[in-house]
Amino acid sequence: MKKFTYMFEEGNAGMKNLLGGKGANLAEMRGLGLPVPNGFTITTEACLDYYEKDETISEELEGQIKDLLSRLEKETNKAFNSTKSPLLVSVRSGARASMPGMMDTVLNLGLNDKVVETLAGLTSNRRFAFDSYRRFIMMFSDVVKGINKDEFESLMDAAKQAKGVEEDNDLDAADLEKVTRQSLARYKEIMGEDFPQDPYVQLMDAVKAVFRSWNNPRAVYYRQINNIPSDWGTAVNIQEMVFGNLGNSSGSGVAFSRSPATGENRIYGEFLVNAQGEDVVAGVRTPMDWEEMKDWMPDVYEEFKAIAKQLENHYGDMQDIEFTIEKEKLYLLQTRNGKRTADAALQIAVDMVEEGIIDKHRALMQIESKLLDNLLHPSFEAGALKKAKPIAKGLPASPGAATGGLVFSVEAACEAVNAGKKIILACVETSAEDIEGMNIAEGILTAKGGMTSHAAVVARGMGTCCVSGCSSLRINKEAKVMEVQGKRYREGDIISLDGSTGCVYDTEIETVEADLSDVFTTVLSWANDIRRLNVRANADKKEDVAKAMELGAGGIGLCRTEHMFFAKDRIFEFRKMILAEDEATRQAQLDKLLAIQQADFEDIFRILKGYPATIRLLDPPLHEFLPVEREEREELAEGMGIPLDKLQTMMRALREVNPMLGMRGCRLAIVFPEIAEMQTKAIIQAAITVKKEGIEVNPEIMVPLVSDIKEQAYLRKIIDSVAKQVLAEENVDLTYSVGCMIETPRAALTSGEIALEADFFSYGTNDLTQMGYGLSRDDAGKILDVYYEKEIFETDPTAILDQKGIGRMIRISSTEGREGKPEIQLGICGEHGGEASSIRLCHELNFDYVSCSPYRVPIAILAAAQAQINCPREYLGADLQKWPL
Amino acid sequence: MKKFTYMFEEGNAGMKNLLGGKGANLAEMRGLGLPVPNGFTITTEACLDYYEKDETISEELEGQIKDLLSRLEKETNKAFNSTKSPLLVSVRSGARASMPGMMDTVLNLGLNDKVVETLAGLTSNRRFAFDSYRRFIMMFSDVVKGINKDEFESLMDAAKQAKGVEEDNDLDAADLEKVTRQSLARYKEIMGEDFPQDPYVQLMDAVKAVFRSWNNPRAVYYRQINNIPSDWGTAVNIQEMVFGNLGNSSGSGVAFSRSPATGENRIYGEFLVNAQGEDVVAGVRTPMDWEEMKDWMPDVYEEFKAIAKQLENHYGDMQDIEFTIEKEKLYLLQTRNGKRTADAALQIAVDMVEEGIIDKHRALMQIESKLLDNLLHPSFEAGALKKAKPIAKGLPASPGAATGGLVFSVEAACEAVNAGKKIILACVETSAEDIEGMNIAEGILTAKGGMTSHAAVVARGMGTCCVSGCSSLRINKEAKVMEVQGKRYREGDIISLDGSTGCVYDTEIETVEADLSDVFTTVLSWANDIRRLNVRANADKKEDVAKAMELGAGGIGLCRTEHMFFAKDRIFEFRKMILAEDEATRQAQLDKLLAIQQADFEDIFRILKGYPATIRLLDPPLHEFLPVEREEREELAEGMGIPLDKLQTMMRALREVNPMLGMRGCRLAIVFPEIAEMQTKAIIQAAITVKKEGIEVNPEIMVPLVSDIKEQAYLRKIIDSVAKQVLAEENVDLTYSVGCMIETPRAALTSGEIALEADFFSYGTNDLTQMGYGLSRDDAGKILDVYYEKEIFETDPTAILDQKGIGRMIRISSTEGREGKPEIQLGICGEHGGEASSIRLCHELNFDYVSCSPYRVPIAILAAAQAQINCPREYLGADLQKWPL
Repeated sequence: MKKFTYMFEEGNAGMKNLLGGKGANLAEMRGLGLPVPNGFTITTEACLDYYEKDETISEELEGQIKDLLSRLEKETNKAFNSTKSPLLVSVRSGARASMPGMMDTVLNLGLNDKVVETLAGLTSNRRFAFDSYRRFIMMFSDVVKGINKDEFESLMDAAKQAKGVEEDNDLDAADLEKVTRQSLARYKEIMGEDFPQDPYVQLMDAVKAVFRSWNNPRAVYYRQINNIPSDWGTAVNIQEMVFGNLGNSSGSGVAFSRSPATGENRIYGEFLVNAQGEDVVAGVRTPMDWEEMKDWMPDVYEEFKAIAKQLENHYGDMQDIEFTIEKEKLYLLQTRNGKRTADAALQIAVDMVEEGIIDKHRALMQIESKLLDNLLHPSFEAGALKKAKPIAKGLPASPGAATGGLVFSVEAACEAVNAGKKIILACVETSAEDIEGMNIAEGILTAKGGMTSHAAVVARGMGTCCVSGCSSLRINKEAKVMEVQGKRYREGDIISLDGSTGCVYDTEIETVEADLSDVFTTVLSWANDIRRLNVRANADKKEDVAKAMELGAGGIGLCRTEHMFFAKDRIFEFRKMILAEDEATRQAQLDKLLAIQQADFEDIFRILKGYPATIRLLDPPLHEFLPVEREEREELAEGMGIPLDKLQTMMRALREVNPMLGMRGCRLAIVFPEIAEMQTKAIIQAAITVKKEGIEVNPEIMVPLVSDIKEQAYLRKIIDSVAKQVLAEENVDLTYSVGCMIETPRAALTSGEIALEADFFSYGTNDLTQMGYGLSRDDAGKILDVYYEKEIFETDPTAILDQKGIGRMIRISSTEGREGKPEIQLGICGEHGGEASSIRLCHELNFDYVSCSPYRVPIAILAAAQAQINCPREYLGADLQKWPL
Repeated sequence: MKKFTYMFEEGNAGMKNLLGGKGANLAEMRGLGLPVPNGFTITTEACLDYYEKDETISEELEGQIKDLLSRLEKETNKAFNSTKSPLLVSVRSGARASMPGMMDTVLNLGLNDKVVETLAGLTSNRRFAFDSYRRFIMMFSDVVKGINKDEFESLMDAAKQAKGVEEDNDLDAADLEKVTRQSLARYKEIMGEDFPQDPYVQLMDAVKAVFRSWNNPRAVYYRQINNIPSDWGTAVNIQEMVFGNLGNSSGSGVAFSRSPATGENRIYGEFLVNAQGEDVVAGVRTPMDWEEMKDWMPDVYEEFKAIAKQLENHYGDMQDIEFTIEKEKLYLLQTRNGKRTADAALQIAVDMVEEGIIDKHRALMQIESKLLDNLLHPSFEAGALKKAKPIAKGLPASPGAATGGLVFSVEAACEAVNAGKKIILACVETSAEDIEGMNIAEGILTAKGGMTSHAAVVARGMGTCCVSGCSSLRINKEAKVMEVQGKRYREGDIISLDGSTGCVYDTEIETVEADLSDVFTTVLSWANDIRRLNVRANADKKEDVAKAMELGAGGIGLCRTEHMFFAKDRIFEFRKMILAEDEATRQAQLDKLLAIQQADFEDIFRILKGYPATIRLLDPPLHEFLPVEREEREELAEGMGIPLDKLQTMMRALREVNPMLGMRGCRLAIVFPEIAEMQTKAIIQAAITVKKEGIEVNPEIMVPLVSDIKEQAYLRKIIDSVAKQVLAEENVDLTYSVGCMIETPRAALTSGEIALEADFFSYGTNDLTQMGYGLSRDDAGKILDVYYEKEIFETDPTAILDQKGIGRMIRISSTEGREGKPEIQLGICGEHGGEASSIRLCHELNFDYVSCSPYRVPIAILAAAQAQINCPREYLGADLQKWPL
């Protein structure tokens, strides 16, 4: 027989999976001897059992609840329905992970027509007793029976109106007794039966309701957003009620053991005299600052201060504590690690280490890595932001805050910026040829595309704020107008974007620049000491490379060579190369591009000073580079000396049905080896030049989109032969390596073989995810929306790496790749490279590095350190411990 | 002491591991007492010994070689360096597994300055002697010393230039003698020593060179790719040279023991008097027909006839035999199973069984299953075809032969066919809306698209001849013109297509109708008795279903429900459904479609009479159904009562960047559950109707493009609930099953889980291949061309299932799927379902069935029987023998 129920004294903080966060912490506090009202917890397993049994409570479970209820009655010396000492309880949800306010709670359970009188007598407070009862009726009706609260609120409103008063507090005991009777009548009217008078029936109904609330829409939504599995279930806590509203020697409040805003080491909280916890949350009266407690109830002030410190020391983290004072006696109702801003997180971590409360490892574990993002980008001034109202919401594709005049084209962007204006570039979706405009924009806004759409990926790389996939926008580029729910915005209209929330505003909002604090640097230096994974950056412009190194990168894990060709002067030559009708013309164009690319590589090598640079051969479908605008086409045709018609035909020939599955990646280099030859030449010549300057260089040449060993072998041969020739000509010795991306499922499943021809593998998790799911990131948007709604997907697999299917490919590939070539270097360079759970996978597979956008480098460093703390080398299987060699 | 050398008379065909394939077969013929030139084999173990001893030949091995060389000299009554009767030998590699062309060979070994004179005298053919010598010098220098052949070829070129002739044959004995001397001088110049004159030294050097060639880069690479262990080593065969070019009592030829064209039981061959085998192959002179041998050399004629019969009986198959006659003495140089036409293959198989030479199992194994395809479709009359010259060549996408007038659109196709004309439909690529035109065309020709492009798949399903991906065509639909290398063809111009070769002609060629012969029927009935795999067909029209059953199918493995909506009257309603702006309108349209679809299913169930029908829910991206022509758009807009503009906007909203990776498959049904509901209703209602007629029904409802268990679970719930409701309404009991396609890599890798929600898996190998490689079948054409040219791919993975990567996914999926649900039914319904190697994989994984186009059913039946003969149930691993349960 499974144990489905635990008295608080039977549990502890380590039992979160079973007791939920709230239950486990109540048990822990109880174990610490702290003043916690008595109670017991019904486990998360009981919740799952409830769902397995078609939403019924088994006899077994009911039996256990009854047993513990008796124990609770004994402990408290109170009893359900007692006319001397009636037991009232709260029934609260509590999942493994905190889901604040998402699920349901019933308070004051145990009240009925008889007990309310007893309570009135015991407390000598008839008003309190009937207020509690009517609240209970309303809450029970809402949570258990689904009756809208308004049905009961309206009775209160009527009573106040009749009496000519405005506040609930202005109603007296008699008024409330009347409202209570009316509430009972309304209940019967709606439900066709009397309000349940048996506290035990009330209890079982409430327990079921809390179980059900695990699947209410807002809880489901919250789980999606926060990556919480739906099969965890919620626990239910049954706890003796204590009352903060028994007069002026009672009260309720919430306090943090340190400031959640700045991290300052002092108690920060609020409380209300003669009030219940919910009154504090609801904000009906303005609460008092914690420090006022000192005057009001100095003993409680000191007691709480000591308890807060004790809890903080015990949990080793800043605590968020709920308390109630019933007639001068302090009760703790909840403690949990407090939520905090990024600034506070860093400050608290550093302070607590200095105070000797925790070590660096624990400190690092307390900082949510993705919070760092906010510290690296400008943000809206908090006050100003509060006042602004979003006009639309898209995906938070690249963090930061930006305000500027709306533009719809690269041309308009250039014009406005040249005129000294700040701009927001709005597009249906961006493509490679918008790069220049994206580069000079304050922010980027797209109507289509997900978290790994072109706009999102490029913006993150640039560190530019971006909101993508904002589907309520209608953008008409030709007409230069953007429509949002009937309102039209034209070029020059002010738009503000919050890339961290996805919100779009039509007002100017003051922004605050990012400023790396000392604690930030301290935390990063700890993380750097601890992490075993290297962190590299995906960058291709020298500014980005420099930024990445400044932020702590240990090299470049992905240099996309195609990005180097988008500047106005370069793209023209590049297009002529693509459209060359014979090899000689193509070669002539390539020679021009060689010089440009070589100079770029030299700049990068100089900045890297010997740190590795993984340079990827040309990857995207060629037609991505071709001009869209007629004007540009005409210009190109003229430049090539051919009629526009012919150019159009040539461009049409390059068009593909599924460009993601077409002529791209290594296929380009196999079909046009002269491109790979030019790029190899540029890399090796640049390396030689920089080496001659006395700077170390470490180029890694990467072949994209391999799916078969023979592709890799073919290109490796070309690369090696060009490199050999160049090195021979210059009579220089240079170490370089040649590897490939593993980004097709077949490459992952034949990695043992491919490793024979590769010095390194770099996992391209974007494509691996796209192809593994058969779902294009550009087309996923509306599908994912429906999938979330129908609970098919909980997270976007293009943002959070799917460990089950895609992760399995990576496991198979890395294991077999190393069997094929033990010294092979393994890394990840997809968008997931900056995401904590993916970094953890890479750590556990003992990869050499992860690579991410420059601005995510600090996040990745922290996540890598956390992965090492969570799973030190000796935890890895023996088969993995030997890697990297 | 290990035995490292075997005279041919000591070996047999069973000793392949030790003697290599070639050595074992020569020994076998020798053992049969046939006239094989004498020789011996140095074993594969000797090769390994050579490597173990740091690439030296041990004294022991050398001693054995010397011994057998003496035996060879004794047997041949010739000797190295003899001035009376010199021994010349060939030195050839021969591994356990055939590695054609990977390792080295030296011929005419034993020649030197002295022996060449003896040879000249003995043969009275000085030119022959010196030509043999100079060839030997070149081959030895290349293979043993690594000197580039060009060093010697250039001497021949110079000699020809000096004499003002073009052909080697125009050089006389004196010329060749001079080239020989120059070759010897060049050798000395490069090597700094004389060319070895001692035949024994030549032999040992050559043996070492052959051993070394086991590890030359191309052999190493070949082994890697073909999974041949590097520790097998190669054997070396030393064999006496015989010469067919020693005058008019000598000759060489090739003969088949039966006609390779018709299977007729008589010797069919060709020979040349005074010629070597290579002359026959090179076709310098017109060879004589085998029957002329009777007059020329009646004894040899009779001797060979008896030998051919003996070899045929011994090997149990028609033989392709190479022979040389040296001065009236017949020598056999090779025998192997002969290649043959489909007609011959069937005739020979049936005859040989009747003659009692082989049993049915062996007979079936001798028929290459894919040859049957030619027998099921019309073909060009052989004589007429010989005269025709192709204007272009594409992919042989669907077999058969067709002649007709060119058309470029469905409209033109209908018009011409209504006027009683035969047509060839030419398109850049076809899409769903061309179905009607494809249906009435004699043949289909496309400029783009691979072996599994839309045109190819649909044409094969219809049994219509198709040439796809013919990239040298420029097709302009608007201008109604097709251009091929400068020549223009217009509507009505006669075009002929050969779907079995991919050739396109611009003349009318007489076609011959297919006629299933008695031997065909006999062979199929044998195969049906033996096969264990079921064979189903992919079909959705009742005619195709009937055809499939006629050709032996055991049910339908894939009924594509979308194909049912392309008829003119249906597509209109279907389009209105797709574009419905609200659920009510969509539901109204769906109700109309329900009746249509239900009637179709009823027809199919009636034909199937209880055989299973796997019906797939709507699969393709919706925009594939939308009208392309303006006229049709206008019609549709009018029909929907909306402005054309609005329709265009709605259509644009459906457009996707990568439709293959977008809103298709189960995603459609999840986003629009009402479509799945309608289809389920149609299936179940049709099944009920037909069952009430007393006909058994067995519907299987299939969900496409699943990538996660939750998708399958969501739709299964919908399907089951609709089915339950319909069955309850009709009060009927009906068995149906619900399964899914495994066609995304992630589905394959999470099959253990998905199986929990599926009664069957059907592998969609088209998509699995597309996504596994990241290569769209529609865009693969030009890429594959280059890949073949550069030897990166040997076959089209969309035509021949890649067993290594994609096959591995299927292995993982089927194994884990069965672990998840032991009784799960497994089948394959991709294009590979009719291809022998894929069928063998399915057999070895103990699948329940394969499913293919109707016209490939006989092929699949034969291939399934062959798989069973090759690998009977008891050969399967214990883990597989238990399946299917």
